[in-house]
Amino acid sequence: MTIVLGDNQYGKAETHVVRVSRAGSRHEVKDLNVSIALAGDFADTHTSGDNSKVVPTDTQKNTVFAFARDGIGEIEDFAMRLARHFVNEFASVYRARVHVEEQPWHRIHDHAFVQAGAEKRLATVTATDDGTWVVAGIGGMVVMKSGGSEFHGYLKDRFTTLPETTDRILATSVLARWRYAGTDVDWKVSFDEVRRLLLEAFASKHSLSLQQTLYAMGEAVLLARSEVAEVRMAMPNRHHFAVDLTPFGMANENEVFYASDRPYGLIEGTITRDDVPEPGMAW
Amino acid sequence: MTIVLGDNQYGKAETHVVRVSRAGSRHEVKDLNVSIALAGDFADTHTSGDNSKVVPTDTQKNTVFAFARDGIGEIEDFAMRLARHFVNEFASVYRARVHVEEQPWHRIHDHAFVQAGAEKRLATVTATDDGTWVVAGIGGMVVMKSGGSEFHGYLKDRFTTLPETTDRILATSVLARWRYAGTDVDWKVSFDEVRRLLLEAFASKHSLSLQQTLYAMGEAVLLARSEVAEVRMAMPNRHHFAVDLTPFGMANENEVFYASDRPYGLIEGTITRDDVPEPGMAW
Amino acid sequence: MTIVLGDNQYGKAETHVVRVSRAGSRHEVKDLNVSIALAGDFADTHTSGDNSKVVPTDTQKNTVFAFARDGIGEIEDFAMRLARHFVNEFASVYRARVHVEEQPWHRIHDHAFVQAGAEKRLATVTATDDGTWVVAGIGGMVVMKSGGSEFHGYLKDRFTTLPETTDRILATSVLARWRYAGTDVDWKVSFDEVRRLLLEAFASKHSLSLQQTLYAMGEAVLLARSEVAEVRMAMPNRHHFAVDLTPFGMANENEVFYASDRPYGLIEGTITRDDVPEPGMAW
Amino acid sequence: MTIVLGDNQYGKAETHVVRVSRAGSRHEVKDLNVSIALAGDFADTHTSGDNSKVVPTDTQKNTVFAFARDGIGEIEDFAMRLARHFVNEFASVYRARVHVEEQPWHRIHDHAFVQAGAEKRLATVTATDDGTWVVAGIGGMVVMKSGGSEFHGYLKDRFTTLPETTDRILATSVLARWRYAGTDVDWKVSFDEVRRLLLEAFASKHSLSLQQTLYAMGEAVLLARSEVAEVRMAMPNRHHFAVDLTPFGMANENEVFYASDRPYGLIEGTITRDDVPEPGMAW
Repeated sequence: MTIVLGDNQYGKAETHVVRVSRAGSRHEVKDLNVSIALAGDFADTHTSGDNSKVVPTDTQKNTVFAFARDGIGEIEDFAMRLARHFVNEFASVYRARVHVEEQPWHRIHDHAFVQAGAEKRLATVTATDDGTWVVAGIGGMVVMKSGGSEFHGYLKDRFTTLPETTDRILATSVLARWRYAGTDVDWKVSFDEVRRLLLEAFASKHSLSLQQTLYAMGEAVLLARSEVAEVRMAMPNRHHFAVDLTPFGMANENEVFYASDRPYGLIEGTITRDDVPEPGMAW
Repeated sequence: MTIVLGDNQYGKAETHVVRVSRAGSRHEVKDLNVSIALAGDFADTHTSGDNSKVVPTDTQKNTVFAFARDGIGEIEDFAMRLARHFVNEFASVYRARVHVEEQPWHRIHDHAFVQAGAEKRLATVTATDDGTWVVAGIGGMVVMKSGGSEFHGYLKDRFTTLPETTDRILATSVLARWRYAGTDVDWKVSFDEVRRLLLEAFASKHSLSLQQTLYAMGEAVLLARSEVAEVRMAMPNRHHFAVDLTPFGMANENEVFYASDRPYGLIEGTITRDDVPEPGMAW
Repeated sequence: MTIVLGDNQYGKAETHVVRVSRAGSRHEVKDLNVSIALAGDFADTHTSGDNSKVVPTDTQKNTVFAFARDGIGEIEDFAMRLARHFVNEFASVYRARVHVEEQPWHRIHDHAFVQAGAEKRLATVTATDDGTWVVAGIGGMVVMKSGGSEFHGYLKDRFTTLPETTDRILATSVLARWRYAGTDVDWKVSFDEVRRLLLEAFASKHSLSLQQTLYAMGEAVLLARSEVAEVRMAMPNRHHFAVDLTPFGMANENEVFYASDRPYGLIEGTITRDDVPEPGMAW
Repeated sequence: MTIVLGDNQYGKAETHVVRVSRAGSRHEVKDLNVSIALAGDFADTHTSGDNSKVVPTDTQKNTVFAFARDGIGEIEDFAMRLARHFVNEFASVYRARVHVEEQPWHRIHDHAFVQAGAEKRLATVTATDDGTWVVAGIGGMVVMKSGGSEFHGYLKDRFTTLPETTDRILATSVLARWRYAGTDVDWKVSFDEVRRLLLEAFASKHSLSLQQTLYAMGEAVLLARSEVAEVRMAMPNRHHFAVDLTPFGMANENEVFYASDRPYGLIEGTITRDDVPEPGMAW
């Protein structure tokens, strides 16, 4: 029997960098949370504590700040510059994955801003000597439908008590991540359009299950955006239960709901096309 | 020596109710988190477990749902109806305080919505036999200034190392609560205007300290809105430190910042007018 | 009409300091989160941005670290040293309040430790020219009783649906804070005994309401510890609902429970003695 | 081009069940958070909303409660019973994964308990028609070394500013998960021993890097516990920075530290043996 080192990676997580551009009279701000993970020839530090091939996570943090000085641009580009830097600069680094979460801000003045909300724009770039993969995304997009949602016709067994319904509230916090077929993309346009398509499909697709809604959202993106190869989504079903008001002599025509925290359904799915490149190391 | 019961209150906290109005083809949704605290003649349950004067918190929750059926309206009105109910209905209840946090939603379709963000609209209503006090508020309004903020001229002692600055980032999450002089107010108009005034003062007031900014925000509200008697604010100073890039041979012209989590300054202040009614039991 | 500044305070919150004592072969560690709030002659910074009387929060943070170098000792003593320093050193500071949360660690080796859990030991010291007040406490002490808890005999109205019970689970997260009559106290002994008394009373007192349990816990402390003048507690009722298993042809003899997150009852109370000094500025 | 459904799963997450055993005069409590994910023949609900093969997540929740009635036992066994149930009962379910987080409680009385802390015991069981895989784990085990930790000899580039050190604080929150080679294991004994071995290796292994510590912890488990096939760990490096006290005329002999929240290093690694069965669908 021999003990062996398997998959491993390390890096600096959650470097929170804010970049202000003061070029004109109106400032621009970019607010990013950057996490880096490196994989490579790191067996020695594990087995003997020999760090000669290790890029300290502190250096990774410094690199984020130094690269930010030259401007952020779109987060997909920034993550690509960082990921390729670590692979190109260090022989011991075989794979660099850079994950960025961008907090959007709304302008209220030439140099004042209010946070736009809990939604985050996401980008994950993975670089090796063999290629670069870009995954974009959106997290924390909380949506609700008060109509156009049913759930019935499901399997019943001895533990089934859920009543079937042709009118329920459907609420979820969307985490959607999509893989690009290449890297020659107008990231901003693509992000804005994907977000719009996701929202539109959620709103307009009559829903017989949250799975159907999830699929329709991913399908809408793939039909309209040829640069997107694959969409992965996770959508917790934030249950809203109609409150029984009959003990108080009242009817509840699906108007008063208790919003429950836990437990919740969790629906996860992938939608892709049959003619797209393999995911490689994208995820 | 005698053991005595001092101040006490109890109630149901965080009843999360969602109310859908289906009157027309377009649904309206109200999403509230309601917390109730009752004070009164509750010594017996503490000392002997005699609950005959206790309104169970479960009943309080039911009351929220039942009252929601008749419509929410503005949260100040909803909280008033609830608070007065408990005082009027139960001889043992001397004081009822109802705190509501409203999650705003943006419409994306006749019956579909996306969450507007992390900001919450707040209302706290306190009712006794002697009166009703209304405090409105806003929480989680995260703002940032990338210009127009200085900090210098402060006290120095042997522990002072902070460099003075004439150009810093000022970022905070505003919690503002304001007390109304009466209850005959157009709550919606007043809330919208107070929020606008707070943001405008934050953005336009040149800042020599976060205290000055806080005061200017409260002052702007009091000057413009005669229905407001008092403003209380808490504003954490979310420090953004300019990163020292000189080790990398780079200048940092106040463009690259590290956003720190802890510790943070916390600035709390009250701004009022000299001609307003006493706060009574408002807070 | 004149705009006036009301109550205000400011300070550095959540300075996380870890102090290692390497005196012997066995290290000692103290892990504190320190929050400071100063009140005083600070009108100028609010109204004109004149900071000449302001002790920067950054200096306050530095002071925490510098004072930690001389050793922490018990957190009540450490908070007292800090609070008095700010009042004594700066004419503009009328009142200093220092709040400390201590994270306990269990030793597993001469210089290795494992975190003891989510419970925190608390101390809040308020100092002015006229005196010093010490409040100690414990937070996050999560307890549960699976027997010895009833709830019945409460007020009923048209919104009451809660069934009475003579056997329920009682679960809560205790926040207890107690005010000392003076400052000449063996803080460690007192804390340990108060914690023991709170737990013992929770466990052994047969409960007819959470209020009764709360009162019994405070009473036990006051009866046994003459140095304690007053106990304030907040105890959320973390509801555990017996699951209805009858649809599955099963009985549930109060054995299977669903632990609910929200809403929750929140019980707050003060227990004191009739012969104790006034609280002054303790709270 | 055809749109196709890729990997997908769904289930009820975070069913919080508390089971009390009242067999003797001393109660036993088990406090679990159960999350279920099913994969299988679920294309129809995605593409057409046909739910005839869907086991509602509400039914999954009911099943957890019903199975809890017969007793929990060790969480690995409970998760196995649940996972196999879904695979065996429903033709449409190809794979069931049940993840359990157990909150430990310490007894303070025959029927009273205090929460033991933030550490959670974990189990993840995956069942298909072809087999059952058991992964156990521990989460939130926060540890610190105030001695016996160095970091030097690492790669330097133009962005490196980190000083080398032969004496630093090493602090982390351990997430360790280990895969069993089979299912005929005394889960309780194995868990207790693995936890002990992890702590002992953390404490006693002189550390030249967090990677070396991580490897030593996994190695210790694999050397001593033949039933364990593989250990996967994630350990955030919770940086403690020695505070520079020289501006105050003080030395800091590695005694006063600022504990930083973000950013943090994140070290992830797998340690296994060369003679173990393939992981299959365990993870």
